[in-house]
Amino acid sequence: MARHIILASNSPRRKELMKMAGFEFEVKSKNVDENHPEGMKAEEIPVHLASKKAKVFLSEITDNEVVIGADTIVILKGKIYEKPVDREDAIQMLAALSGQMHEVVTGVCILSKQKEVVFSDTTKVYFNQLTREEIEFYVDNYKPFDKAGSYACQEWIGAVAINRFEGDYFNVVGLPINRVHQELKKF
Amino acid sequence: MARHIILASNSPRRKELMKMAGFEFEVKSKNVDENHPEGMKAEEIPVHLASKKAKVFLSEITDNEVVIGADTIVILKGKIYEKPVDREDAIQMLAALSGQMHEVVTGVCILSKQKEVVFSDTTKVYFNQLTREEIEFYVDNYKPFDKAGSYACQEWIGAVAINRFEGDYFNVVGLPINRVHQELKKF
Repeated sequence: MARHIILASNSPRRKELMKMAGFEFEVKSKNVDENHPEGMKAEEIPVHLASKKAKVFLSEITDNEVVIGADTIVILKGKIYEKPVDREDAIQMLAALSGQMHEVVTGVCILSKQKEVVFSDTTKVYFNQLTREEIEFYVDNYKPFDKAGSYACQEWIGAVAINRFEGDYFNVVGLPINRVHQELKKF
Repeated sequence: MARHIILASNSPRRKELMKMAGFEFEVKSKNVDENHPEGMKAEEIPVHLASKKAKVFLSEITDNEVVIGADTIVILKGKIYEKPVDREDAIQMLAALSGQMHEVVTGVCILSKQKEVVFSDTTKVYFNQLTREEIEFYVDNYKPFDKAGSYACQEWIGAVAINRFEGDYFNVVGLPINRVHQELKKF
C-alpha cells in the first residue's frame, strides 16, 4: 500500500491516532457546510458529514491518493450533541451527560478516484454523576469548545467522569483507528 | 484532601494517569518480591502484589501521607500473563492473545497509617487475529518487555489489534484511574 494518504481533518487527536497506527499521511482540510438534511437519523449524520469532508477533495486527488474524512457526534437518549456553541452550552451538555450512558459515533469516509468506503463506529461511554463545580472546573480549565459533547476522554474529565467504555476507545478520541487500519489495508 | 500522595510505581504510564486526574504526588518505589502464594486465584494476585508494593512504605510514612501500590496482569482462559521474560516469550504471549478476548486486571492498594483500601478492576480487551509478521514487528520495534501481556494498548498494536474494550480503558493502560480518584476523594 504505497498510496498517498490525505487526512481531511484538522483534529490533532485524529492526527495522533493515524500516527499511532503507523501511517504516513498529509493533513489537508477544507471548510464544508456541516448541515445535514432535515429528518436524517442521528446515526447517519456522522457518515454523511465524513463523506462531505472527503468528497471536497475528489476533483483534485490523483489516482494514487486516498482521502479520509471523519465526523464525530455524541448521542444521548436520541438527542445529538455536537460541538458546544459557548461556555453555558458546554456546561449544559456535560450536565446532561452526567450520571448517564451516551454513545459516541464517528463516521468515516475513505475515498479514492476509484472507490468510496463509508462506515461508522459506535462506542458506549458511561459517566459518573458530576457536580456543577466539577463541570465548571473542566469547562473553564480545558475549554472543550472544539469537542463533540464538550469533552475529551483523554483529559481530566476522562479520569474523573468515565467509569466504563464499551467499544473502541480510540473512536471516542476521534477515529475508530482499528477499523480505519483494516479498511486501508484492503483499499 | 491535602494529603501527600506517594505513587509506589515506576511505571511512566501510571504517572501519566495520576497527572491526568490532576493529582500532585511523588513517585517512590522499592523492589518487592513479586511471587505470590501457590494456588492463589488469578484475580487475587494483582491486589496481593499491589498491597505488598504499598506496604513496604508503611513504616516510613507520616500521618499525612497516602501510598498507592498497583499491579497489572493479563488473564487469558484462566492463565496468567505477566511481563515476558524475553523476545520469544513476548511473541508467544501475543500469539496466544491474537484473535481472543482477554482480561486485564489491575489491583490497587491505597494505604495510610490509619487505613488500607484494596480493590481491583477488570477490563475485557478483544484482539483481532494478528499475523506472525505483525507480532514480530511490534515486539522488535516497541520492545514491550516491561508490560504485562507484552503489549501497551496506547502503542501501534492498540490501533492494529484491539477492536473492543469493555470496562475502564485506563485500567488497561495501567491504573483504574476513575476508581482511584473516587477512593482518594473519600480517603
